[in-house]
Amino acid sequence: MSFDRLIEGIRRTNNPTVAGLDPKLDFIPDYIKEEAFAQYGKTLEGAAEALFVFNQGLIDALCDIVPAVKPQAAYYEMYGWQGVRVLEKTIAYARSKGMFVITDGKRNDIGTTMEAYAKAHLGTTEVAGESFEAFGSDALTVNAYLGTDGVKPVLNVCKAQDKGLFILVKTSNPSSGELQDRKLDDDLTIYRTMGNMCEKWGEELPGKYGYSGVGAVVGATYPEQLAELRKALPHTFFLVPGYGAQGGGARDVMPAFDENGLGAIINSSRGIMCAWKKEEGLDPKEYAQAARREAIRMRDDIASTL
Amino acid sequence: MSFDRLIEGIRRTNNPTVAGLDPKLDFIPDYIKEEAFAQYGKTLEGAAEALFVFNQGLIDALCDIVPAVKPQAAYYEMYGWQGVRVLEKTIAYARSKGMFVITDGKRNDIGTTMEAYAKAHLGTTEVAGESFEAFGSDALTVNAYLGTDGVKPVLNVCKAQDKGLFILVKTSNPSSGELQDRKLDDDLTIYRTMGNMCEKWGEELPGKYGYSGVGAVVGATYPEQLAELRKALPHTFFLVPGYGAQGGGARDVMPAFDENGLGAIINSSRGIMCAWKKEEGLDPKEYAQAARREAIRMRDDIASTL
Repeated sequence: MSFDRLIEGIRRTNNPTVAGLDPKLDFIPDYIKEEAFAQYGKTLEGAAEALFVFNQGLIDALCDIVPAVKPQAAYYEMYGWQGVRVLEKTIAYARSKGMFVITDGKRNDIGTTMEAYAKAHLGTTEVAGESFEAFGSDALTVNAYLGTDGVKPVLNVCKAQDKGLFILVKTSNPSSGELQDRKLDDDLTIYRTMGNMCEKWGEELPGKYGYSGVGAVVGATYPEQLAELRKALPHTFFLVPGYGAQGGGARDVMPAFDENGLGAIINSSRGIMCAWKKEEGLDPKEYAQAARREAIRMRDDIASTL
Repeated sequence: MSFDRLIEGIRRTNNPTVAGLDPKLDFIPDYIKEEAFAQYGKTLEGAAEALFVFNQGLIDALCDIVPAVKPQAAYYEMYGWQGVRVLEKTIAYARSKGMFVITDGKRNDIGTTMEAYAKAHLGTTEVAGESFEAFGSDALTVNAYLGTDGVKPVLNVCKAQDKGLFILVKTSNPSSGELQDRKLDDDLTIYRTMGNMCEKWGEELPGKYGYSGVGAVVGATYPEQLAELRKALPHTFFLVPGYGAQGGGARDVMPAFDENGLGAIINSSRGIMCAWKKEEGLDPKEYAQAARREAIRMRDDIASTL
């Protein structure tokens, strides 16, 4: 019902980072794609198989040093239900290797519909008296534009199943300010208002390390807002995209951490997945080892700056 | 690149309504579930099969009198990839019967990730030089909390493929006002600000009936805001949930329409899907005929009030 398990993973590995699994076909070495296409054809199914083999290699290479993975639902949906099946298989594989899995789905709706999303991604689905895990992730990203009606059903599932959620507060993209930076009539920005709502919602999911099960997505590309929010939201754990490929460095993500070096997990997707493309002369079959080297570099970059 | 096709469907059927396909197992007659479980077991696959058979019956009964269906992604994801496969099959079946399909996924993200969602639900996915439709819907609901970066990639796909999107503006739920009704420092509400952004984004997808391909979701449960937004957003087509089960009546949805009786499509989900439960003594095998009767009642209710 909180991020205690995630925090314990971060402590065990001494590594507050999460590897994004956003497997575009372009990111996958040819030998994997060729094998998958040979078996399943140049089809959505063949592409999905390539995604899964690629992900498995990454998870094997990272699971002892990186505490969490974050599959991005869009890159699986792009390959149809065959891709979505690989999302499910990827989550199960990462969990079997002891990793904490955050499904980046930015889901949002109200009432029983939001409950359906919460059951789908974090809870269980009842069929004729039997319970099934549909996707069985540990945490889900959520967009709370619809207010409490869109969050409460997720809180209920998180409470029952020891899961967590991350709410979009201040996103990492250039246009995030169009709406999120606008000031309300009480002089608070929308992102700050959303952050305050996270603190309030989090009261229902307290954790033993001081952080609730309601986290916030706050981009590394806005270090000032990161610092403001860290100070204002003492019980809200941060998921921080924007390190690496999006331009944020170790110094930019420092404000995400509290005085004990806790309180945040920093995401890298392309930086880790595509590391093999940056090592000159590397055999593509070594893609997972290259990802591991980049994950270690990132861990040490952040640790040395902390 | 606009809602012209949807508007033509509304004119053809003389019916500005859309049937929501949110098939919870509870809504499905036992005989369908029993057959599906007998064939595929009391499993996610068995449940998914029941969903599909139920949907097919509804689509067959509605396709000549209702111009559009709106499957809600959450109710398919709840049954895992097996359920998501049925989402794809449902969309294909409804389109084969000439219906306009709005996938209610409220998707949101940025840049290439949002592009992946747009390709998944509205466009095509490339695999080794071949193009595949992953879900192949006609329109997608989108949450624009992330600003233009989260909308532009969908506009591009809509432009190329003659598709549309509906952005959440003022949702139908009780807590929608927590954020959406707050006033910004220029004295406009957030929902109005979001509405104005729809008008701006819509300039890229003009339509021949005056409405762009960027629509807005505005709940029937807030008739005053509906009237305000209709007046303020002359080029934005409205998708209006909240009729029926959520408490809105024909009188409540009237402000959604322009002076020509155009400009909006009214959704009913449970009202239509569960109509068979309300007719005393009805053979559950007649569920689709009951849905048709309710769809006709709703059409005539709205037409007579217009």
